[in-house]
Amino acid sequence: MLDALKVDPGEEARIAERSTDDRLGHDKDDGEERLDRLVERIDELQYRLYAEDRRSLLLVLQGLDASGKDGVVRRVFDGVNPTGVTVASFKAPVGAELQHDYLWRIHAALPHRGTIGVFNRSHYEDVVAVRMVGIAPEQVWRPRYEHIRAFERMLVDEGTTIVKVFLNVSREEQRKRFQERIDDPRKRWKFRRDDLRVRERFDDWVAAWEEAVSETSTTWAPWYVVPADRNWVKALAVAELVAGTLEQLDPRLPEPEEGIEGLRIE
Amino acid sequence: MLDALKVDPGEEARIAERSTDDRLGHDKDDGEERLDRLVERIDELQYRLYAEDRRSLLLVLQGLDASGKDGVVRRVFDGVNPTGVTVASFKAPVGAELQHDYLWRIHAALPHRGTIGVFNRSHYEDVVAVRMVGIAPEQVWRPRYEHIRAFERMLVDEGTTIVKVFLNVSREEQRKRFQERIDDPRKRWKFRRDDLRVRERFDDWVAAWEEAVSETSTTWAPWYVVPADRNWVKALAVAELVAGTLEQLDPRLPEPEEGIEGLRIE
Repeated sequence: MLDALKVDPGEEARIAERSTDDRLGHDKDDGEERLDRLVERIDELQYRLYAEDRRSLLLVLQGLDASGKDGVVRRVFDGVNPTGVTVASFKAPVGAELQHDYLWRIHAALPHRGTIGVFNRSHYEDVVAVRMVGIAPEQVWRPRYEHIRAFERMLVDEGTTIVKVFLNVSREEQRKRFQERIDDPRKRWKFRRDDLRVRERFDDWVAAWEEAVSETSTTWAPWYVVPADRNWVKALAVAELVAGTLEQLDPRLPEPEEGIEGLRIE
Repeated sequence: MLDALKVDPGEEARIAERSTDDRLGHDKDDGEERLDRLVERIDELQYRLYAEDRRSLLLVLQGLDASGKDGVVRRVFDGVNPTGVTVASFKAPVGAELQHDYLWRIHAALPHRGTIGVFNRSHYEDVVAVRMVGIAPEQVWRPRYEHIRAFERMLVDEGTTIVKVFLNVSREEQRKRFQERIDDPRKRWKFRRDDLRVRERFDDWVAAWEEAVSETSTTWAPWYVVPADRNWVKALAVAELVAGTLEQLDPRLPEPEEGIEGLRIE
């Protein structure tokens, strides 16, 4: 299932052509059940990752507005020991962040060894949003593809495994979710008229993401495009990716000190 | 119930005289049930804290080895949106941390506005552990009581609410838990012979904590001494403290933009 979601390095991501409402071979009930089991498994593997204290996992979550990034974080990691998971949410840079290169704040927020870090938005906004909003010209944002490939290569070489997910929501599903925010007094504060300006150029944003994803899906840090119209499907896919990656890492508990076994404490 | 756990500013903490196995008026079943409800309530209030984005909550957790700090974090915050909770675990300072004053790394790890930060160990080790292990002389660690009172005062004035908890475990319960670690192959790696050296001076460590807690329980950042021999009791007490503090903060959802209500998205 995950192979179909992967953007093969060197290939076009073709995000607009991909399904946004696929069920990945599950119905909701068995999908939710599998999801529960995966979350438990992630917690178990995270314990070993933490104990081992040598490597880390970075999950990058991107997607258009209302693609459900927050919800995925909640569903997949709430059930995993909070000490072993750090979530960093990146908004438009301000203050000291602007006094540095765009990777400075990213670097500072990377997960410690032994932990899982989740980026809710990331350095990829410094290509796509910067491009779409016209914050910097092409001669600034285009070279960033190469910076990012090199930066991620270094991270992987030094012990951070990277998984990148683009949550692929349809224009119609985004409409529904915006409408829900507006209609629900508890969610209304989240909605801004500016969101509509972005929505007007929905297809252009997808095209910009297509390019960014195609340019930066590498053998060492691949992208996965996940159908995001159904909440349980996207959580399931992300949980499969995280669990599968941790299984491959296969972290080991450290050896205890010599001669501890059988010791009686008084 | 929480009043009895509080160390009144200006009073002696008398930790050694306090119960380590009190049930706080609950039996295990109704205690666990209440705990579940409190975790849900914390999640609800955390949502509002995050939305409001103006204030933060810092929970400082201290306690002797095997008092169950990790377990409390897990039980109280796993069920709360991971995006709104950050856990910082402080070990003995190393590298760049030693090139700065002891509050430097603490300051950097404080929770963002809108979030709950948990300190698993903290700047209080820079008084108590430094004193007990003999890392620095009294003329270094004693003035830190005053630094810490002033530092925490500043944080509170600037929008961080601080709750400090000392998990009060008995010498016998510590023995059991150490023994458990040694006997369980999955936990054995956690145990070090050095833990026994600390255990030999159990009463001296408690006395050092008594002084530190007495000196730094202030009207703006009070300490609570929580009986820690039973896992459900300490989690319940900490959940009561966190939930009660958030209730008092009573964070409010921001006002939506003018004229959003009734808007139809196309």
